[in-house]
Amino acid sequence: MSLTGKHILSSDQFERQDLERLFQLADLLVPVARGEQVTRVLEGAVMASLFFEASTRTRLSCETAFLRLGGGVTSTTGTEVTSIAKGESLADTSRVVTGYVDLVVMRHPEVSSIHEFAAATNVPVINAGNGAGEHPTQALLDMFALHREFDRLGKPMDGRRIALVGDLKHGRTVHSLVKLLSRYQDMTIVCVAPEELGMPEYLLELAAERGHRVEVTDQPSLGLKDADLVYTTRLQTERFKDRPLPYSDDFRIDSALVNRVCREDAVIMHPLPRDSRPGSNDLSADLNRDPRLAVFRQTDAGIPTRMALFASVLGVADEIAGSLRPARWYRPEYTGPDDAPFYK
Amino acid sequence: MSLTGKHILSSDQFERQDLERLFQLADLLVPVARGEQVTRVLEGAVMASLFFEASTRTRLSCETAFLRLGGGVTSTTGTEVTSIAKGESLADTSRVVTGYVDLVVMRHPEVSSIHEFAAATNVPVINAGNGAGEHPTQALLDMFALHREFDRLGKPMDGRRIALVGDLKHGRTVHSLVKLLSRYQDMTIVCVAPEELGMPEYLLELAAERGHRVEVTDQPSLGLKDADLVYTTRLQTERFKDRPLPYSDDFRIDSALVNRVCREDAVIMHPLPRDSRPGSNDLSADLNRDPRLAVFRQTDAGIPTRMALFASVLGVADEIAGSLRPARWYRPEYTGPDDAPFYK
Amino acid sequence: MSLTGKHILSSDQFERQDLERLFQLADLLVPVARGEQVTRVLEGAVMASLFFEASTRTRLSCETAFLRLGGGVTSTTGTEVTSIAKGESLADTSRVVTGYVDLVVMRHPEVSSIHEFAAATNVPVINAGNGAGEHPTQALLDMFALHREFDRLGKPMDGRRIALVGDLKHGRTVHSLVKLLSRYQDMTIVCVAPEELGMPEYLLELAAERGHRVEVTDQPSLGLKDADLVYTTRLQTERFKDRPLPYSDDFRIDSALVNRVCREDAVIMHPLPRDSRPGSNDLSADLNRDPRLAVFRQTDAGIPTRMALFASVLGVADEIAGSLRPARWYRPEYTGPDDAPFYK
Repeated sequence: MSLTGKHILSSDQFERQDLERLFQLADLLVPVARGEQVTRVLEGAVMASLFFEASTRTRLSCETAFLRLGGGVTSTTGTEVTSIAKGESLADTSRVVTGYVDLVVMRHPEVSSIHEFAAATNVPVINAGNGAGEHPTQALLDMFALHREFDRLGKPMDGRRIALVGDLKHGRTVHSLVKLLSRYQDMTIVCVAPEELGMPEYLLELAAERGHRVEVTDQPSLGLKDADLVYTTRLQTERFKDRPLPYSDDFRIDSALVNRVCREDAVIMHPLPRDSRPGSNDLSADLNRDPRLAVFRQTDAGIPTRMALFASVLGVADEIAGSLRPARWYRPEYTGPDDAPFYK
Repeated sequence: MSLTGKHILSSDQFERQDLERLFQLADLLVPVARGEQVTRVLEGAVMASLFFEASTRTRLSCETAFLRLGGGVTSTTGTEVTSIAKGESLADTSRVVTGYVDLVVMRHPEVSSIHEFAAATNVPVINAGNGAGEHPTQALLDMFALHREFDRLGKPMDGRRIALVGDLKHGRTVHSLVKLLSRYQDMTIVCVAPEELGMPEYLLELAAERGHRVEVTDQPSLGLKDADLVYTTRLQTERFKDRPLPYSDDFRIDSALVNRVCREDAVIMHPLPRDSRPGSNDLSADLNRDPRLAVFRQTDAGIPTRMALFASVLGVADEIAGSLRPARWYRPEYTGPDDAPFYK
Repeated sequence: MSLTGKHILSSDQFERQDLERLFQLADLLVPVARGEQVTRVLEGAVMASLFFEASTRTRLSCETAFLRLGGGVTSTTGTEVTSIAKGESLADTSRVVTGYVDLVVMRHPEVSSIHEFAAATNVPVINAGNGAGEHPTQALLDMFALHREFDRLGKPMDGRRIALVGDLKHGRTVHSLVKLLSRYQDMTIVCVAPEELGMPEYLLELAAERGHRVEVTDQPSLGLKDADLVYTTRLQTERFKDRPLPYSDDFRIDSALVNRVCREDAVIMHPLPRDSRPGSNDLSADLNRDPRLAVFRQTDAGIPTRMALFASVLGVADEIAGSLRPARWYRPEYTGPDDAPFYK
């Protein structure tokens, strides 16, 4: 399916072939994302970045991706959209703003808003998070990062063992991931969560229907074993204010645990941000120098993924290859001092 | 009068000849505004977008217009201008910021501020709304939209019947419109408003002095009849909190009324936003598929109008025609699903 | 020392030779800063502008400088960085955001934050103010403006008499200035301040160690005499809420004082903003038409200085000269109506 002219509202829109085409383009765009090459295919195009709810890194990442394609960005954050305060319908806002620009990236705290907004315009709208709903560009960048990791390790995407860890009930990230991972073949999906924070039934069924194995455990030390990918998320203690936590603190994923149970070639991911405050049940910073920790390679993947998506939606994917030229400014060999040597 | 190097503070600055020259340029820029062509005449120029009062769509529209000319934008919103909080005069702020950039677009809640700001610099300053004062770029885009509509309908601008509807006392939009419409010849201006929200006397006199007919009524069903343009604005019920409304609810302009009394080739405009909440005395969304409803063609007109204005003020108007090249990215045939077939 | 790839955190990093190389480049960039020439050396590069504390003019100046080099900017202001609110460490924020972009400009109210942020990335980070710490780009622009003034007056930098006036205890601007001025030779630094707001001892010692004369007085009428540069700052009365002011109001630097005691060829600078409210102990606006007042030439110097710094840090300094082309848009002969005739 061609993505040209499409709204991108849900990760359900992507079948395996779409992902593969997108990743091929994103691979080509990695040097642009790193500031080593330049493309100007969207010179003259303008994107509106509408964040009705703040999300600094998603906004900066989307805006940077569009700028790196040569386009311009006009941006608004917060609930400050003044016309809406005066009783304007979201349909009117949509038609007005999309009459200005070529692409809209929008985040909104309410699930239905992105659909209402997109229905009122033919200009492509990208969902950058709609409350408890979806965040498809995050799901795509997770998959692209995974594709890069498995590629580096010489492993095919098919047939992998994937451990999803943490609050699997509320995390829209892991829900989207199940949808996209299940587009491949022969996966084993291991859900590692306290019982009452388990993966929703409909997603377990979806994975099973598509022919994958599903395992469930509340013990990280069991669940992480043999996994090719360990995808961790934060356990939000604030959900259990008035009663004892329904899990021990071994949901803190740290080097002691990883060294004890994980494969040598495991890949450890996390959607970030992670909570680095003392006592948080989250991914520990003591793994920062462990080359298995892929969290920053993962966030880095956001730029080429979003560039590839924007270029595809705007129908210029085929012009990328011929448009590349070398960048001439300084770029450090490694972005982070702890970056793994294999990751330039 | 050449606009090059001028501050644009009031719609009084524009005589008929200025409007016509501007609209000729704006016509040329419509394909750029629509993302079908690219110009880079302002590549390297920088605009500061200073919104001391929020106005999302005006800001996005001005920023997009400058970006589509090839320029860059640096932007600030709200009262967050930190130097002013420390006791800086607006004259100092002006001289400092205009030492950075090539053009300033400014909105401020106080009427006098734009004048104080403009007096302290020779860098062109564009008024994007000064409280109860003026909003000349809105007035220009209204006129450009009207020029496009009448052109499409094969009607000359001169000799038209124009109905202005709603709160004509407080609306700076309709005030500016009277000033600009009266630059043409032989108009009939019909003021349709509750008696105590009527058009200010000095504007009625201005229109009469310039040789136009003026009619006044508080009945929309009478006032809209035979009008070539119906320009509606919102009636703000909040102005009458503690006493009965001085008008019946037939100031709601909807398809029933329009179909009953308006011409087949009428043009219906509104500065937007319109209040779509139940019970609002405003332009109804049930007209959205009526091709006479020009409100989105009108907001779309904001980009080419502002581009033409910025290019004129920065003295590059004559370079536009030679600078155009085709855009290569996707653009939908129609922006809105309800857009009229004649309006690509 | 080459600046390529370096973090710019402190004015201590700059020796005389670094300053001279930077000013040579900045001189070349003045026409670009003024909108008379265009360079696109950073076309394709992206800067993140992270202002955890608002500072409108510093942000606009840095963003404009990067845009005028041909780059793109993505920007965030205030404490809205949402990931940090969720417990993310500043190190994580740094690694994530610097994986997107080529350069970061950051302002933060806490002194240590910029160091923590910079330590987590190899992508160059520019300190745009870290609380009571430093603001090196302000110090550099002050020095560049001074270089331009002395150049115009035919005076060498060495051997000058420099009066620093106002609150010398708390002003990070004057602290940085002492560090940079003392990189030159044979200066006389006159500290003009109420006794309890005097220059910190360690800076007096630094200047003396480097072979300069230091004089101290609490009388502006004495201290300003014979000075080549009078660098004034605001006296913040709010520091003395509950007790009598420790100084008379003759710290108001106005035309009466300047005409009485200053040299004909003195240069008067101020970091701005100045407090123009009645009764403020600050630089008076009645000097605005005195050509000795260099405060706006000084703020104008911010753009070429920051352009030169960014270009140097990104390793494209040597490409500037060959990249320049004339700008074609309108630029007023003088930015401010009161600008001195010698300053186009």
